[in-house]
Parts: sequence; structure tokens; C-alpha cells
Amino acid sequence: MTGIKKKLLSMVAPDLEKIEVALKDNLTPHLDLVKETAGHLMFAGGKRLRPLLIVLSARICGHEDAFLTKFASIFEFLHTATLLHDDVIDGASVRRGKPVAHSVYGAPVTVLTGDFLLARALNIAAESESMRIIKVVSGMTEEISQGEIQQLIKKGDVSFSEEEYMDVIRRKTGVLIQGACKTGAILANASAAAEEALTSYGDHLGLVFQIADDILDYTADTKELGKTVGADLREGKLTLPVIHTLREASPADRSRMEAIVANADFTKDEFDILLGLLDQYGGIDYAKNIAAAHVREAKAKLEMFAPSEARKTLEMIADYALHRRA
Amino acid sequence: MTGIKKKLLSMVAPDLEKIEVALKDNLTPHLDLVKETAGHLMFAGGKRLRPLLIVLSARICGHEDAFLTKFASIFEFLHTATLLHDDVIDGASVRRGKPVAHSVYGAPVTVLTGDFLLARALNIAAESESMRIIKVVSGMTEEISQGEIQQLIKKGDVSFSEEEYMDVIRRKTGVLIQGACKTGAILANASAAAEEALTSYGDHLGLVFQIADDILDYTADTKELGKTVGADLREGKLTLPVIHTLREASPADRSRMEAIVANADFTKDEFDILLGLLDQYGGIDYAKNIAAAHVREAKAKLEMFAPSEARKTLEMIADYALHRRA
Repeated sequence: MTGIKKKLLSMVAPDLEKIEVALKDNLTPHLDLVKETAGHLMFAGGKRLRPLLIVLSARICGHEDAFLTKFASIFEFLHTATLLHDDVIDGASVRRGKPVAHSVYGAPVTVLTGDFLLARALNIAAESESMRIIKVVSGMTEEISQGEIQQLIKKGDVSFSEEEYMDVIRRKTGVLIQGACKTGAILANASAAAEEALTSYGDHLGLVFQIADDILDYTADTKELGKTVGADLREGKLTLPVIHTLREASPADRSRMEAIVANADFTKDEFDILLGLLDQYGGIDYAKNIAAAHVREAKAKLEMFAPSEARKTLEMIADYALHRRA
Repeated sequence: MTGIKKKLLSMVAPDLEKIEVALKDNLTPHLDLVKETAGHLMFAGGKRLRPLLIVLSARICGHEDAFLTKFASIFEFLHTATLLHDDVIDGASVRRGKPVAHSVYGAPVTVLTGDFLLARALNIAAESESMRIIKVVSGMTEEISQGEIQQLIKKGDVSFSEEEYMDVIRRKTGVLIQGACKTGAILANASAAAEEALTSYGDHLGLVFQIADDILDYTADTKELGKTVGADLREGKLTLPVIHTLREASPADRSRMEAIVANADFTKDEFDILLGLLDQYGGIDYAKNIAAAHVREAKAKLEMFAPSEARKTLEMIADYALHRRA
């Protein structure tokens, strides 16, 4: 475990414990099978980033109450719902080091459990009786599905631009992380300026998380990552390192890359060639630099808050988002 | 077209026109593909039962306004979302006389479009700014997914009881129809008694619709039905006519039925044997009688309202629900 991860975990350990309890307490389906299917993924060691962000965003605004973890579960439920649907759609086999839910429970139950979690999330949002929170949550869900579809449409399309990529990742990942920070601020009854700062922090953080995730797909090893390295490319998902390299590459190298992208059954050797090109044209470094700029912007947004343990933790999360190894 | 259908259609024609406009106006995705995928099914001649029920339930309480059709779209969007997911899950091939959406747009886009429609429905509910409506809508969505899963779990299980069947159809179909009636009453600011009467009307009507649907799967012809006759049995879905017949059949006949249920590839001859047994043991009549009792109860709930065109229409819908041929 990296030093930053260890330190972070010790700082948020009491919150994580409460979040685990809230996730279990608020799942409440009628059917054991739904609990099992949702739990298969949800209790397989997720980072709980999104629920933590609600708690910390409320705390940095001076707010603390027992219901925070309940509303925090909204974001883990939504996140889990999208992962369940994604894995079915992508035909993934491994997630968080375990066989994916649909390989155990079948695609039908998995899709429907995803639907249940979407609905459950919105039900908990409704229990807040805050129209603003309800609108944040229902709005996010609409964006996420569209971000996913936008990504699907562009699979294997080598003309996929950096701008389109940023648009997709903001929708499919960013809005949920941003929504968690914003909801924390709303629950805290924060000033408009504080809410805006946290929302913007969440926006930058979401981009960092997804860009880092996309980098890891080329740089991690499968065991560490808990899912298959190179999976994005195999599915034709073009991410920032590849987009940059395609843009910078010589016509000959671009052609070699295009051939690999077009072939879902590329060999280990071909993947290594691609990694070589990403290195040669600085694709990984480019993506890291973009992400690092968003880390800086995220942290800058926190400067309006007085120094506190919560602020320190949110700053460390931004650093961790980029430097994590899984 | 049956006489009752023709008469009903002429009574609701102006409402149906406004509902079509509202469905188009409120879909509003960012992506054309989402509009196409949702529209493939949604604009392929659905009955618009659920949106109509909102409009009529509000009207019977003396309420009429331009926003009714907007909130009415919530229920068609949710209904479409569940059909899109169901067809993917069931591997269906035809719906409303057209190839299913996933055969045209692929399962991934279809699942995600379903997610979009779920979210869109909840967003429109949020726009009502009525906590009660929001809770009705998010609550329904939770029930529907669980009803579907409950049905999946019981596929091919010949011990599936009438009580379990009623529980499943109430969840997977009933809550949405009931929710539409209740929402109409809420939008109309109806008295508690009127809201309760309409909610109960919707509960009975939902059961009638699903039981009739399940009967049609044995009695209609494929062209008229717009989907394949006998499809339920082929998927192992046990419905009321079969449940009753299994319960009443001699041990020998029960064994013959169980063999057909267990074999998804049953022949036309085997299907005819099953139809013969449904006839011999009164399975279809039994289901029709149960449905007819719910038609009576649904109509009785309307007696508290003064006679009006809206009341007449709601009564006719209850009759039509049972006597329709597709």
C-alpha cells in the first residue's frame, strides 16, 4: 500500500465504518437474491469514495449529523448500479478481484438489481425531503446513462477527440463525484460560495479519478488492479493516453495503432507495441499532466475553507486520486 | 377492432393527441441515438394506458391543466424502460409487431436507454416539486424491479402459487397503473377518500390488465398480439391459467404439463396438448373469473364520484382491460 493511501485510510477509518453500516441498513430489498447480487459487488472492497465525499463536504462546512451516512449511501448505490450494468454491457469478467456479478447471478438478475439500486438511491434522496438533493440525484442518473451511451457509440472510433473524451468522462464519472460533494454542501446548508467551491472541487476530482483510471488500464498489473489490464482497448474504448498518441503519432505509427484498436483480439506483443508507442509519444505523461492540473484546481477550490482535518483529507483525496495504483 | 375499443378510442382521442405531444416534448436526451432507441418502442403504438389514467383520474376529481400530460409521460417512460429491459432479459424478438429494440440497437444501448428513461421519469417527477409524487414514482420503480426478479427466480417452478403470482403481478404491473391513478388524484388535490378510491381502482385495474395479458398469451394469435403466442410458457413463466390447471389436474395430467413446462423447446403439438388441458381443467375460465371480479371491484370504487364522462371512460377502461384482444 502506498504511504498516502495508508495515511488516508487511517484518517477516514471511523467514517468508513459508519458508511459500511449505513450501506447495509439502507439496502433493504424484499428479496434475499437482490441483497446478494448487490452485495456481491458492493461489499467486495470498494473505496467508498463517493459516500466519503458527502461526509467530508458536509464536515468542511461545519456540519455533522447521523443522517449523513444514510444520504451517503445514495451515491454508493448509484455507483454500484452503474458498475453492474456496465459489466453486463461490456461483457467484463473480473471486478475488484472477483468474478463479476452476472457471471454468478446471471445477466437478467444483475440488470434488474442495477435497476433496483437506481430506484433505491432515488428513494433515499426523496426521504431527504430536499428538492435540491432530489434534483441533483435524478439529474445525475440521466447524465450517467447518456455518458455511457456516448462512450459506446464512439467505441473503436479513432477520430474520438480529447474534447469528446472529457465530455464523456464528465458525464459517466464526474457528475456522480461532483454530485456527492454538492449534496454534502446542501445537507450542511452551506453558503452559495461554499457549495460552488465544493461542486467545482468535485468536478475536477471526478475528472482526475477517471483519467487516472484510464491510465491504470495501461500501467497497472491485473492482480493489483482487480480487473484485466488493457480491457479498455480490447473493448475499443479510446482514452486520453491513446487519443493523445494517435494525435501525435507519425502516419505510419498511427496506422499501426489503428490496426491494433480495430482488432479486439490483439496479442500480448501487439499490446506491448502499443505501450511502446504510448511511451514514445508521451501519451501516459500527457494524461498525467492533464490530471495533475485538475488536482491543483481541485485543491485550489478548498482554499476558501479554514484549515481543518476535513480540508486536509479532501486535499489528500485529490492527490491520491492521481497517484493511486489501483 | 372490438366495439368497446373503438368507442373508448373516440372518447379519449383528444387526450391521446396531447399525450403524444408531451411524450415527444419531455423525452429530451442529449443524444439522437437515445431518442431513436426509446422512440423505436415508445412510438410503436402503445396504448398510452398509464398516461391516460393520470389525466382521467385528475379529471374525475374536477382537475384539468396543461401540465397533466407532462406528468403523464412519467408513467409511459417508466413503462417503456421496463419493457426495454424485459425484452433484453427475456431474449424477446418481437414487441408491438416490430423487432425488439435490442435487435436493432444492440443490448448495451437498449439497457442504457432504459436507465435513461428511468432517470428521466424521476426528473419529471422532481419537477412537480411534490414530495408525494416523487415518493410514489421512486417507490414504484423499486417495486417493479423486485417484481421482475421475483418472477425470474420462479421461472419453471411448478410450485409457483396463485398467491405468489398475484404478488409478482401486483409489483411488476400493478404498482405502475395504481401509481398513475394515485398521481392523478394528488395532482388534482383530491380528498383523501377520492385519492384512496382511485388508488384502489388502479390496484384492481392493474391486476386485470396483467391477468388478461397472461390469458392472451394462450388465446390470441401472434399477428393480433404483436408478440409471440406461448412466449410466457417457453420462458418458463407460469401464469394464472397454468397455475390453476396444475393445481386441479390429475397426477398424470400434471406430469404431462410439468414435462412441457420443463422443455423450452416444446413443439406445436405439445403446446396444443397444454391448451387442451387448460381448457379441460378450466384454467382460462378461472383466470377470466378472477379478472372479472377485479373489474367489478375497480368499477365499484368509482361509485363515489358523480357520473361524468371521465368516470364513464374509467369504467370502460376496466371492461376493456379484460375483453381486449391484444
